[in-house]
Amino acid sequence: MRATTIHAPFDLRVEDVPDAVIKDFTDVVVRVLRACVCGSDLWAYRGESARQPGQRIGHEFLGIVEEAGADVTGFAPGDLVVAPFVWSDGTCDYCAEGLHTSCPRGGFWGSVGSDGGQGEAVRVPFADGTLVKLPADAASDDHLLTALLALSDVLGTGHHAALGAGVRKGSTVAVVGDGAVGLCGVLAAKRLGADRIIALGRHTARTDIARAFGATDVVAERGDAAEAAVRELTGGQGAHAVIEAVGTEQSMRTAVAITRDGGSIGYVGVPHGSGTGVDLSVMFDRNIALRGGVAPVRAYIPELLPDVLDGTIDPSPVFDLTVGLDGVPGGYRAMDERTALKVLVKP
Amino acid sequence: MRATTIHAPFDLRVEDVPDAVIKDFTDVVVRVLRACVCGSDLWAYRGESARQPGQRIGHEFLGIVEEAGADVTGFAPGDLVVAPFVWSDGTCDYCAEGLHTSCPRGGFWGSVGSDGGQGEAVRVPFADGTLVKLPADAASDDHLLTALLALSDVLGTGHHAALGAGVRKGSTVAVVGDGAVGLCGVLAAKRLGADRIIALGRHTARTDIARAFGATDVVAERGDAAEAAVRELTGGQGAHAVIEAVGTEQSMRTAVAITRDGGSIGYVGVPHGSGTGVDLSVMFDRNIALRGGVAPVRAYIPELLPDVLDGTIDPSPVFDLTVGLDGVPGGYRAMDERTALKVLVKP
Repeated sequence: MRATTIHAPFDLRVEDVPDAVIKDFTDVVVRVLRACVCGSDLWAYRGESARQPGQRIGHEFLGIVEEAGADVTGFAPGDLVVAPFVWSDGTCDYCAEGLHTSCPRGGFWGSVGSDGGQGEAVRVPFADGTLVKLPADAASDDHLLTALLALSDVLGTGHHAALGAGVRKGSTVAVVGDGAVGLCGVLAAKRLGADRIIALGRHTARTDIARAFGATDVVAERGDAAEAAVRELTGGQGAHAVIEAVGTEQSMRTAVAITRDGGSIGYVGVPHGSGTGVDLSVMFDRNIALRGGVAPVRAYIPELLPDVLDGTIDPSPVFDLTVGLDGVPGGYRAMDERTALKVLVKP
Repeated sequence: MRATTIHAPFDLRVEDVPDAVIKDFTDVVVRVLRACVCGSDLWAYRGESARQPGQRIGHEFLGIVEEAGADVTGFAPGDLVVAPFVWSDGTCDYCAEGLHTSCPRGGFWGSVGSDGGQGEAVRVPFADGTLVKLPADAASDDHLLTALLALSDVLGTGHHAALGAGVRKGSTVAVVGDGAVGLCGVLAAKRLGADRIIALGRHTARTDIARAFGATDVVAERGDAAEAAVRELTGGQGAHAVIEAVGTEQSMRTAVAITRDGGSIGYVGVPHGSGTGVDLSVMFDRNIALRGGVAPVRAYIPELLPDVLDGTIDPSPVFDLTVGLDGVPGGYRAMDERTALKVLVKP
């Protein structure tokens, strides 16, 4: 089969690799219908996260079950399924409580020895604990299929951020980051009943999506000016719920600065760089909480899926460029250069 | 009147100062019956927090209202009252939601221009928003008076930490710090229904109090060994709720290390030092939350008071040395040298 591999920074290739096959009785093989490129894939692409030459890449996909191991009870060939961005056994303490990302037997697609989502097929370990079935007729609905793909990561991650930020009915929310996760944070905050959603971003194409997703205000400023703008919009107090969807020192610093005393920062941007931006003395004086981390999206798919299926929420606008498998390297380039927001892959 | 003043690091004096008097219609003057020395006072004593020469000190006290301003409706001369460690107007948004420490008109006892608790009397601004009345007959109960004094800071601060750590019925809790706040964190965790409470501390006199307060296990190790010991006690997972009651980089690092994936650190140790101990990449991978800060103890007194009055909880063992006003400098010395846990002052 063909799949995307990474050999060095900025050196992605689409090449022949061994076919995905059942290795354990609990595996299935999924033929990929849709995959995509994540902002966090760019850390590997840019060499800021180390990869071994030839390692697979891509952790978001949905597709059709092609073959199921003998012990798989929940899936059969022909099923349409979506995969969260980590696999998990579905039976441990952490899986039972909805923290699938801490499953001791879990792992990330594209880690050494595993298939990645940006390929023709994927061997899925612990299929019963990992995958979620989708309605079969969605396979023929191109638009819906794209929306459903967001369940593999960005929608659930935005939801995790909104929960960490403590968004509830009537909340005032600020969202730092206008990438796909930040935009999905807007969508999730709106879904959870936020009254006011302030999106921080300077790219009109992106803030237009934010507005369509429910943002009531857009702040184009950065740093101190962003803080001043958010404070002006919130009677000087800041936002009670802040979503941090970037992961840099500066973005966290902004998140702390715009959080109202007693509020929470829901952070889902993968931390990068030496500084954290977490000014503990400011957070201490103002009782600002920090909650979040890698999102256990497997736990959220059952809750979010019905709303995507019936169109209550439609995250598909975050995909603004579509490529075939051979177009994946170009898709990365477009995202790296910020000419694309999020790239959809149709293998 | 006589009050404690700080002139330079390690230079505390008990000297004549202007009498506490009503300045605003919303003030009362409280004659101090009991005060005490806080671990956080030691930061000023050691010169790690700057003070102006002659500044007052002490932020925990209870006493008798001596005089009340014309606009004070809740208190009259003769009332026994306890003061939380900040004053607050009782009318702003933050006071209304129980975050009195963020009151824009609030302030700390001992800040420039205000009286401190370690003196004969204190002018209390915004008395109606600040003080809490105690039963008059408690004034003649020496033991109860000492227990009630803990409501001014350490008991409410321990409670804040326990709430931040997410302690609930059945929780496994670990407490970093065997000072008075850490011990009150044990007491608060027990009161909130924790099943298992692991106290980290190496001073037997203190860990004995921890056990009396409800600790089920004591870990005397520090650093990596402490982490290993807590993990061994918790099936390898760590504690779901961790109280951080020290405020150093090392203590926060330990707190992060012993928190179970998906758990929370309730932190109330005043952050000191350049490093934070907050390893964001570890916290991200394991979804560890950080919640806490300066405790709005005014909000907690009404909830905690009945339990202190009826003896359900008795924080008085944290006071292990009693001095008169002239003994305050010696009391600081004893706490600085760790020969005393917490010093009670009877002016």
